[in-house]
Order: sequence, then structure tokens, then C-alpha cells
Amino acid sequence: MCEANAYLFRNDKEELLMERVDRVVPQSGEIYLESIWGQRKTIAARIKELNLVDHRIILEMIEEEKVD
Amino acid sequence: MCEANAYLFRNDKEELLMERVDRVVPQSGEIYLESIWGQRKTIAARIKELNLVDHRIILEMIEEEKVD
Repeated sequence: MCEANAYLFRNDKEELLMERVDRVVPQSGEIYLESIWGQRKTIAARIKELNLVDHRIILEMIEEEKVD
Repeated sequence: MCEANAYLFRNDKEELLMERVDRVVPQSGEIYLESIWGQRKTIAARIKELNLVDHRIILEMIEEEKVD
């Protein structure tokens, strides 16, 4: 099976959001996730990066642009 | 290996963009794709849906909102 784990990147760390994610659907500022077991979650985030060979989906919160 | 094929959804059809994609990185209105063979492509599109168990990444062009 080729599902991936979804992580939320926040404060320079990755926290596990959902395991064994099958479907990922971006929806107007949110991401809908569905696992192979039918678990569902919607989060106000965007996709930062996918690494499919490593089974990783990295999301990040939608924030205002930082001013350095 | 758990890479996926990337398709572009256009005119109600899906056309194959790249096979065996490992990395997908959204970048300010574009999507960067990289295959397990190191092939790279950047396309002005957004992620429509991922179906990882089916090894499918569906992208769609960024267009103006349609007025019905």
C-alpha cells in the first residue's frame, strides 16, 4: 500500500497529523485528508511538500507573510 | 516504490504529465515535480487531488473563476 503519513510543520517541527493517508484534497484554504481506514480531517493549511517515496505529506499552517 | 503518476486535468480529461513522481512542491502559483529518475518539471498549476493508493496526483491549471 502506498499511502503516506501527513505531518504539520509548525515552529520548525513536524507533528504527525494523520497516518496512512490515501486522499488529499485542497479546498479553498483548507486541506481535506482521508486515511485508508476512512478517518477524515480538514485543516486550515496548505501543502508544503510531498515526498512520496518516503511516504511523507508535509503541511503548513496558512499564516500572514512574515516581515523580516 | 510508492511514487505516483502526475496528471493534468484539462477540458474534462487527464493527460499524463510525469511518471513516477517522488517530490511535489507547491511554489507561489506553480508546482515543482521531480521523478525518481531525477526528471524535473515546473508547471503553473495547483493540486486538485491526490489518490496515493491509486498512485495518482491530479493537477489543474490555474484559471480565472468561471462565470456560469
